[in-house]
Amino acid sequence: QIDSARLWGSIHETAQFGATAKGGVRRLTLSSEDKQVRDWFRKACEDAGLEVHVDALGSQFGLRKGRDMSKLPVGIGSHLDTQPTGGKYDGILGTLGALEVIRTLNDAGIETEAPICVVNWTNEEGSRFAPAMMASAAYVGDFTTDDILSRKDIDGTTVGQALDSIGYRGDKPVGFQKLGCFVELHIEQGPILEAEGKTIGVVDSGQGVLWYDGKISGFESHAGSTPMPLRRDALATLSEIVLAMESIAKKHGPNAVGTIGEAVIANPSRNVIPGEIAFTMDCRSADGAIMDALDRDLRAAIAEIGARRKVEVKIDLVWRKPPTHFDPKLIAAVENAATTLGYSSRRITSGAGHDACNLNTVMPAAMVFVPCKDGISHNELEDATQGDCAAGTNVLMHTVLAIAGV
Amino acid sequence: QIDSARLWGSIHETAQFGATAKGGVRRLTLSSEDKQVRDWFRKACEDAGLEVHVDALGSQFGLRKGRDMSKLPVGIGSHLDTQPTGGKYDGILGTLGALEVIRTLNDAGIETEAPICVVNWTNEEGSRFAPAMMASAAYVGDFTTDDILSRKDIDGTTVGQALDSIGYRGDKPVGFQKLGCFVELHIEQGPILEAEGKTIGVVDSGQGVLWYDGKISGFESHAGSTPMPLRRDALATLSEIVLAMESIAKKHGPNAVGTIGEAVIANPSRNVIPGEIAFTMDCRSADGAIMDALDRDLRAAIAEIGARRKVEVKIDLVWRKPPTHFDPKLIAAVENAATTLGYSSRRITSGAGHDACNLNTVMPAAMVFVPCKDGISHNELEDATQGDCAAGTNVLMHTVLAIAGV
Ligand SMILES: NC(=O)NCCC(=O)O
Ligand SMILES: NC(=O)NCCC(=O)O
Repeated sequence: QIDSARLWGSIHETAQFGATAKGGVRRLTLSSEDKQVRDWFRKACEDAGLEVHVDALGSQFGLRKGRDMSKLPVGIGSHLDTQPTGGKYDGILGTLGALEVIRTLNDAGIETEAPICVVNWTNEEGSRFAPAMMASAAYVGDFTTDDILSRKDIDGTTVGQALDSIGYRGDKPVGFQKLGCFVELHIEQGPILEAEGKTIGVVDSGQGVLWYDGKISGFESHAGSTPMPLRRDALATLSEIVLAMESIAKKHGPNAVGTIGEAVIANPSRNVIPGEIAFTMDCRSADGAIMDALDRDLRAAIAEIGARRKVEVKIDLVWRKPPTHFDPKLIAAVENAATTLGYSSRRITSGAGHDACNLNTVMPAAMVFVPCKDGISHNELEDATQGDCAAGTNVLMHTVLAIAGV
Repeated sequence: QIDSARLWGSIHETAQFGATAKGGVRRLTLSSEDKQVRDWFRKACEDAGLEVHVDALGSQFGLRKGRDMSKLPVGIGSHLDTQPTGGKYDGILGTLGALEVIRTLNDAGIETEAPICVVNWTNEEGSRFAPAMMASAAYVGDFTTDDILSRKDIDGTTVGQALDSIGYRGDKPVGFQKLGCFVELHIEQGPILEAEGKTIGVVDSGQGVLWYDGKISGFESHAGSTPMPLRRDALATLSEIVLAMESIAKKHGPNAVGTIGEAVIANPSRNVIPGEIAFTMDCRSADGAIMDALDRDLRAAIAEIGARRKVEVKIDLVWRKPPTHFDPKLIAAVENAATTLGYSSRRITSGAGHDACNLNTVMPAAMVFVPCKDGISHNELEDATQGDCAAGTNVLMHTVLAIAGV
């Protein structure tokens, strides 16, 4: 059994780095707050006897030796970055839970056959730089390191510049640390486990993701003197797109969602009809055929709206992540650990994307979910109980022991 | 006849202060660009022999003596501030046209019976600080000077601080310069004169304006893991409001318009359902009863949308300017000047608000319109011909001579 109080203490100690007034965390990837939590994490890993390395995209790897160093390490961990108005658990539980597994094994003097590697992946959230799960995507070869280093945030700062500014452009090439498999603990970020009173979610699949950048070019004109029929209003156009996206997602539901999270009017003014808007779209489904249908319906709706309103709308698919089907043997190992420990559980699909989804494309991977309050995430009010966090960490530890061998 | 080339030269010389790449002007009120054009204007007025004073809200007044100084001056002028992506004519033609009238009278050695006062009103556009036509509203007593001085822009800078920062908080109290009447020359900012091939618009009325500040409070949550039916999406709510506003304005049309020009998502992120949006609304009609109907229908629609989506929407009416009916004698004077000079003309309603609309509440006022290309305004592509600008300025001069007496 892991040390529940110690885990809880780590979660709340690190929550100070970027703490918000509403009890959440604002710790955008590669920000000064992210540097603070990375420094804390490196020291904690070193204190736990791990050998810590940083790769060229800033991901931190802490290795615990195994009896048989010819075996590839079992990877565990998640991420420590957050949304602009994020919570204390998303990613953090999985990273500090992995650290807690190491501390517990150390205290109990348990040596494993295979080594264990604790990982903090850079930019899982995808808020500051697209795509989400950025560093793990480069790790599995979806993008080159150079491509990722050149991605820019909204202020034009590149990933490379941001890494340098906090001193986290590591000396190891991406992929230097080979892993045999990867297990990630995470809060569910949805309402199912809580509603059904289950402690553990045995994650067997994950939704695919489509991310688009969009740009609407209408025509700026005077709010008072431009008759309604002569307008080419970019905001009215966006509004139709938002509502079309909503009804398309509902039409393909319940296994589909669609969101417009960002929309910025260029040079806004009260008495000017908006002429130009940049926006982003996020569509998801666990079913590849539904993803294709979402894409098709969305493009058709946007074409119709733009043509009818005589407004140009361009959309650009910047990221397509297919649905994930986790490794059956690892899924069984997680399920078995939950049962052995006496926790209620159910199989579950992840609505969110996770680094484990990327890793699963090149190695066996699986995930452990625990409930979060009212299914709320990507919100400062995100919450989870100490007992559930400890339960998930115990399941993670027993899964690792079963895979790594004692 | 005024000097068409000199007027055209002044317009294009001052267009350098805040010139944009697309040929427009970005000269927000009380910005450093606004200081540049104010300095230019003060010097030009002094060179033309005017006695220049600045009031506590930064408006510039240049007085040309009349034979009978017991008579109140005839006020002429407009504004030199622009929209964030504004044009070279909106306000500028009226201010520099007024200066050109003075220069022409000087050259011709014409003395008038009543004095003439050229005015550059502060913050006509209302983009940086609300309301529009701010200084003329304070001049006529709609707001106190202290109230206006405390108004803030989006960065929290007050009108008072902005005035100090460019050295234009004048030593004269607002209202120090009494005027007997006011005549404003302006581009139409709409398509009617051009479409009908008329050179002069004799403005007999102006639309009333309703300005609102709005705030939507939904709930931020994860774009991937939050099922569509559980969302309280602030952007989807705004989208319904935008489209409701559009159809309400159309329903009450053609004599009504409605616009949402600003909308800002708080802490936007691609994979977060928007939780909070601040926005503004602008509704207009030349008919007071239609203004009331717009307000009523809008509030009802917003209440219904908010309740159905379980999202809180607050709207706050921050400005209500009733429709304007200009002074019949001054309207006739403008019309007579146009006819005498041989310009084609028609009566017209102003879609935009103007300082003359404020002044009309306490003194006789009127306006002269000239066509602008395709009716485009509040856009960098705003355009007008040299001939039309000169024609409007001639009508302004002959109207002034008729009122002031030679
Ligand atoms: N777990 C999580 O919130 N990941 C962020 C990436 C995404 O799913 O949008
Ligand atoms: N003339 C003009 O564009 N005024 C700005 C104020 C408004 O009508 O919105």
